[in-house]
Amino acid sequence: MKYDVIIIGGGAAGLGAALYSARYNLKTLIIAKEFGGTGNIAHKVDNWIGEPGISGMDLMNKFTKHVDEYAVTRVESEVSKISKLSDNSFSVKADKTYHGKSIIYALGMKHRKLGILGEKEFVGRGVHYCYTCDGPLYPNKKIAVIGGGDAAGLGSLFLSEYGSQIYTVVRKPTMRAEPITQDQMLENKKIKIMLENEAVEFYGDKLLKGIKLKNGRKLEVDAVFIEIGHIPLSFLAKESNVKINSHGFILVDNTQKTNIKGFCAAGDITTRHTLKQFITSAAEGSVAAESIYNFIKNNKW
Amino acid sequence: MKYDVIIIGGGAAGLGAALYSARYNLKTLIIAKEFGGTGNIAHKVDNWIGEPGISGMDLMNKFTKHVDEYAVTRVESEVSKISKLSDNSFSVKADKTYHGKSIIYALGMKHRKLGILGEKEFVGRGVHYCYTCDGPLYPNKKIAVIGGGDAAGLGSLFLSEYGSQIYTVVRKPTMRAEPITQDQMLENKKIKIMLENEAVEFYGDKLLKGIKLKNGRKLEVDAVFIEIGHIPLSFLAKESNVKINSHGFILVDNTQKTNIKGFCAAGDITTRHTLKQFITSAAEGSVAAESIYNFIKNNKW
Repeated sequence: MKYDVIIIGGGAAGLGAALYSARYNLKTLIIAKEFGGTGNIAHKVDNWIGEPGISGMDLMNKFTKHVDEYAVTRVESEVSKISKLSDNSFSVKADKTYHGKSIIYALGMKHRKLGILGEKEFVGRGVHYCYTCDGPLYPNKKIAVIGGGDAAGLGSLFLSEYGSQIYTVVRKPTMRAEPITQDQMLENKKIKIMLENEAVEFYGDKLLKGIKLKNGRKLEVDAVFIEIGHIPLSFLAKESNVKINSHGFILVDNTQKTNIKGFCAAGDITTRHTLKQFITSAAEGSVAAESIYNFIKNNKW
Repeated sequence: MKYDVIIIGGGAAGLGAALYSARYNLKTLIIAKEFGGTGNIAHKVDNWIGEPGISGMDLMNKFTKHVDEYAVTRVESEVSKISKLSDNSFSVKADKTYHGKSIIYALGMKHRKLGILGEKEFVGRGVHYCYTCDGPLYPNKKIAVIGGGDAAGLGSLFLSEYGSQIYTVVRKPTMRAEPITQDQMLENKKIKIMLENEAVEFYGDKLLKGIKLKNGRKLEVDAVFIEIGHIPLSFLAKESNVKINSHGFILVDNTQKTNIKGFCAAGDITTRHTLKQFITSAAEGSVAAESIYNFIKNNKW
């Protein structure tokens, strides 16, 4: 059994690619460790047009259900290796080995860690990376959020629904979060934005008790949520000689093609958009499917 | 009153731009002759992920309602002129004259005409350009669809729900419609695909009676739906010295910027995507808003 296309990753990009691949009548396999991907953990999306305030989980479920209306083979497993074969097709190792004429790589990114003292020690005992998952564990508690981007901003707002006091610890003199988010933070009496502050150590006993800051002061908190960005999951592509930039993102052209014939990439993992959102990811997935269709049916690359 | 951005066009691109502009806290005006645009006339969309089988009208209403949750000024009017002022801002003439620091141009395309004898004469009396609008007027009638692309294919399928016999008249030896659409057409007993046939004249009395073909034969039908593509509505941009390609599409870079500072374009009207779909249009609109945000707030172009 040789698929026309194997899609790796089950977020907005992968599912968008699956929908369009199926509509192009391509024999389509999609493999993901978890369908919905990091999209599942978004508390409130609000920027997917037409669905104000939907949860990430609900939105991703809608995407997956739509894909399931087509003849797409969907496998929940983790891919460990992609190999290019001598006939220019690909083998993909997951729960078993699959064989395809082409690849759409849409693995996205994962949470970045701070790498400071105590971080590993207190993971799950006060140190967290997913505010929507673990925020509700801290009602009426003091909570710190570390980071200055959208995730830190949105996380602070979300956590203010639970905690008694939120400290947003930002290393730089300004935040990078969307202005509307920053406005909402400023209006929120529970949130204190601490600019030009850097966490250097987490301390505590069995549970986290606080953060040591670079300026020597301590911040007593019951929980810390680290929201300092993501690491692009491009390593499997890199092993297949796909070109990656210095930040680990896959170089693609305007039609999502990489330097390797038959190998497209889509979504957060690519260099295509600085605006990394569901809408841009789903669009990239659709365009990747178009490119693969032209490759498979018309031999155009 | 000077807006940060004036968005021209109310389809997926314009509404996508409006949502993101509002989220970027830009003072946003969106002007459209009809909100939803050509999207409104799509019978069944099915390629907007998460909404299998939704009608174009329903989808566009969802988009518009979402935008209405934000502080966006929405004006239903036709823009007649865009002028760049000496201070590099723009004036936009519609029901009245509006003033903005930047433009997102998202006017899309309109239906292309055949330009043959009888076409004008029988418009609305047998000759139509919108199958979802006018198809239901012809129950149990013989209907021709002219064209070989997606619209002609989807139109034929749609019309087969009403008419007794559908002739899909295709000039070329193959169709360009999506393979899944072509498969559905072949399986549909009401549809006859007539490859390598060209309409040269429409004839009739008060109402259309049929089509004269280039090979001398006549095709007796009660209605004709012309689905041969679209004309990009770029003329207003062109007047403002925005660069257009030979097919009338606006040249944009990867961030939707045109050659004119402060003037972005998004959606079907641009050269960015060959895959002209709701998903790519909405993504382009979002990216245009990002570029305008950087222009307005950070003076980056």
